[in-house]
Amino acid sequence: MVRDFVDMETEERVRRYDRAHVFHSWSAQGKIDPLPIAGGRGCEFWDFEGKRYLDFASQLVYTNLGHQHPKVVAAIKEQAERLCVIQPAFASQPTAELAHAIAELAPGDLEMVFFTNGGAEANENAIRLARMYTGRHKILAAYRSYHGATHGAITITGDPRRWASEPAISGVVHFCGPYTYRSSFFSKDEKEECERALAHLEEIIQYEGAHTIAGIILETIVGTNGILVPPEGYLQGVREICDKHGIVMILDEVMTGFGRTGYWFGCEGFGVTPDLMTCAKGITSGAVPLGAVVISRKIADAFQDRVFYGGLTYSGHPLACAAGLAAVTAMKEEGVVENAKMIGDEVLGPGLRELMDKHPSVGDVRGRGCFWGIELVKNRETREMLVPFNASGAEMGPVGELGHAAMNRGLSLMIHWNVIMIAPPLIITPEEAQRGLAILDEVLEITDRAVS
Amino acid sequence: MVRDFVDMETEERVRRYDRAHVFHSWSAQGKIDPLPIAGGRGCEFWDFEGKRYLDFASQLVYTNLGHQHPKVVAAIKEQAERLCVIQPAFASQPTAELAHAIAELAPGDLEMVFFTNGGAEANENAIRLARMYTGRHKILAAYRSYHGATHGAITITGDPRRWASEPAISGVVHFCGPYTYRSSFFSKDEKEECERALAHLEEIIQYEGAHTIAGIILETIVGTNGILVPPEGYLQGVREICDKHGIVMILDEVMTGFGRTGYWFGCEGFGVTPDLMTCAKGITSGAVPLGAVVISRKIADAFQDRVFYGGLTYSGHPLACAAGLAAVTAMKEEGVVENAKMIGDEVLGPGLRELMDKHPSVGDVRGRGCFWGIELVKNRETREMLVPFNASGAEMGPVGELGHAAMNRGLSLMIHWNVIMIAPPLIITPEEAQRGLAILDEVLEITDRAVS
Ligand SMILES: Cc1ncc(COP(=O)(O)O)c(C=O)c1O
Ligand SMILES: Cc1ncc(COP(=O)(O)O)c(C=O)c1O
Repeated sequence: MVRDFVDMETEERVRRYDRAHVFHSWSAQGKIDPLPIAGGRGCEFWDFEGKRYLDFASQLVYTNLGHQHPKVVAAIKEQAERLCVIQPAFASQPTAELAHAIAELAPGDLEMVFFTNGGAEANENAIRLARMYTGRHKILAAYRSYHGATHGAITITGDPRRWASEPAISGVVHFCGPYTYRSSFFSKDEKEECERALAHLEEIIQYEGAHTIAGIILETIVGTNGILVPPEGYLQGVREICDKHGIVMILDEVMTGFGRTGYWFGCEGFGVTPDLMTCAKGITSGAVPLGAVVISRKIADAFQDRVFYGGLTYSGHPLACAAGLAAVTAMKEEGVVENAKMIGDEVLGPGLRELMDKHPSVGDVRGRGCFWGIELVKNRETREMLVPFNASGAEMGPVGELGHAAMNRGLSLMIHWNVIMIAPPLIITPEEAQRGLAILDEVLEITDRAVS
Repeated sequence: MVRDFVDMETEERVRRYDRAHVFHSWSAQGKIDPLPIAGGRGCEFWDFEGKRYLDFASQLVYTNLGHQHPKVVAAIKEQAERLCVIQPAFASQPTAELAHAIAELAPGDLEMVFFTNGGAEANENAIRLARMYTGRHKILAAYRSYHGATHGAITITGDPRRWASEPAISGVVHFCGPYTYRSSFFSKDEKEECERALAHLEEIIQYEGAHTIAGIILETIVGTNGILVPPEGYLQGVREICDKHGIVMILDEVMTGFGRTGYWFGCEGFGVTPDLMTCAKGITSGAVPLGAVVISRKIADAFQDRVFYGGLTYSGHPLACAAGLAAVTAMKEEGVVENAKMIGDEVLGPGLRELMDKHPSVGDVRGRGCFWGIELVKNRETREMLVPFNASGAEMGPVGELGHAAMNRGLSLMIHWNVIMIAPPLIITPEEAQRGLAILDEVLEITDRAVS
């Protein structure tokens, strides 16, 4: 207990007002009891009783620089003093400089940036750009994906969060992406999974008609749907298919962008450049809401004389862009992307594989950089999921218990069905990562007991 | 020229980076030349050459407290020091306190708040709430409306900005709202316009089937589509129709909320409480992106045991909510809403009516508080629009010229086709408002010359 942080009165008020007036995302409002958080720094945050939590999820995979990075905080304060906001018809210094910085970092000819407030809006505008650019209507998207909750983004989403919003936009077709551990294609290994997943995509395109398809959108590495790393060659294969058919390739890098995978952008790790790349989250480390569509020169040029019919009040918001610019600068100056890679290669990768050796409930571990998933199973042979597809609440059983036990021990985890996401801030030290792994080692005994 | 602000090198870089890397909203990228803005304070902003502009549009109708209100800036800096962000599954102090403050200010039983990043996302979630709450699918929305550019929000939008994104979501039906000056119902006065617009809505509901309609959405006072103030009784009539048929009444207060019309929320001025009220813009005076759906207790309670399937990474973002809390507090402490009303009643209303008397190109002026429109016509008898529906670029002719002339004289205006929007910050003094009106008086001679 850190006495400084005990402020019962504030905590009580926050709890009361929160329950009475804050309507929470993805929840039955009467069944939640949100913990009031008082502060955070680096890889930790704490509640009003001073209990500290090591954040192994970077909140929702966005505090890439940890909480309260001093350079980001300073930039926000400075820009707040100078000019918080100006409307997007004007030019603004932090907006122009962040766009320039992103263009320098992004691969290939991805050099124009359309700023939004978050990931969903970025994907909304990627859909719009692909449609306007090609004059075609359909968007192909993967099952086992999440792209946001506005009506366009939720339609391309390939998980149950979409169901309540259907029917939404027209022209979206889902296909199965690669997932070697639970192959939709009955593959025996990564190589076969890659070949078959590409053949499946080609088949779907044949049935849909290539000339009707504006874009194909994929998460570079699938995030909440299980940290699914595409097999070597898959994204290159999709790139070739898109080129062959004049389809816009869209990569959703909302989670994988800005260092998460040990590369500035996840696609670099696969040697692929999409035509449109959507970002959010890590772009500001979450400090101010910001999203972006990074646009290839070729597509941007198609809108030189032709109006782009999309926009939003806060496109290029100066305060948000100042935070983004500081975040990018700090990442460069402090070797944060390199640290993410090192942590993945030397600590999380080996450490998680060790946990897998030791714990029978761990069926698979996969990932790179600071982006890993632990897939929990009832039985390693049958690979039966420890909790069912789309489990929530009580159905989460031992996995829910594991999450609570970790939280009690001061480790905050993001868990989706039977997958624990391991996505700490990219600034994490080997010691902190080891501390988290040690707690994981303890709590995995809970799920081990459910193995049959 | 204020020497302090002359910074040629920065200006040159901002211009260069902006043109090379920033993709702008609603534009043909090769046909714009965005002016770099260096700073702002109160009702003014200035460029890098120190030229100052009186902001008669509050940027895009959101700097309700003007630029850089010291209490908002201080709150941002303070919250930036404390904790920029925490994910929405936790409770946060500024989030809970802002929700509480909004619940206190909002009329009737509007007492739960779902926070988003902006107006489009607020409307997206209002659509979702109405559909989930009623179990019905259709949304009725007005022609001559704007609700945002994500695929749900753009579908309910009733202006040409929608066209490029169609077909988008299913189940949206547009009807004609009241607009006495250009009645869709051949009405002779406000009273008849009200009766006929309500009868028209009832007729459309009959054809669509009331039991298939989840919600009716309206801007309380239509914004960019012409500052259309509904006639006395119209919104009450819609309220009764919604009650009769179990339809959710949604008011979009993205522009009209937070004091704009001389009331905290525009609907108070009409004595009506919707079931869902969407906000953004003025909620933080634009300082940090933030939007909200304010939800009636009745609808919120329907999600006590049932999951609300919607969400976003930054729902309830602490930094944004701290800015919102400071803005609301400053508005209360400084009598800003009262000032907006006084400015409307004593300065803008009389001043604009005087301009109408004097300038033959002014066909109509309408509005309240700090939310007015000047409708320009070729001929007062025929009411022919001075520039056509959906005019842009060169078609804007004399109206475009008027805008440039005003800007040259240091007055920034927002113009939509043949309507000049007069929407200054709510803190504007009578003297500043008079200064703007005097410039308007000068530049209206340009449009007067186009009168036939
Ligand atoms: C891959 C991916 N895309 C898009 C989104 C949506 O982003 P936002 O919540 O900022 O709208 C998310 C959010 O988790 C995401 O993980
Ligand atoms: C009435 C109204 N609703 C919604 C919106 C969309 O808000 P945003 O641009 O923040 O998404 C706007 C924006 O101008 C608006 O005027």
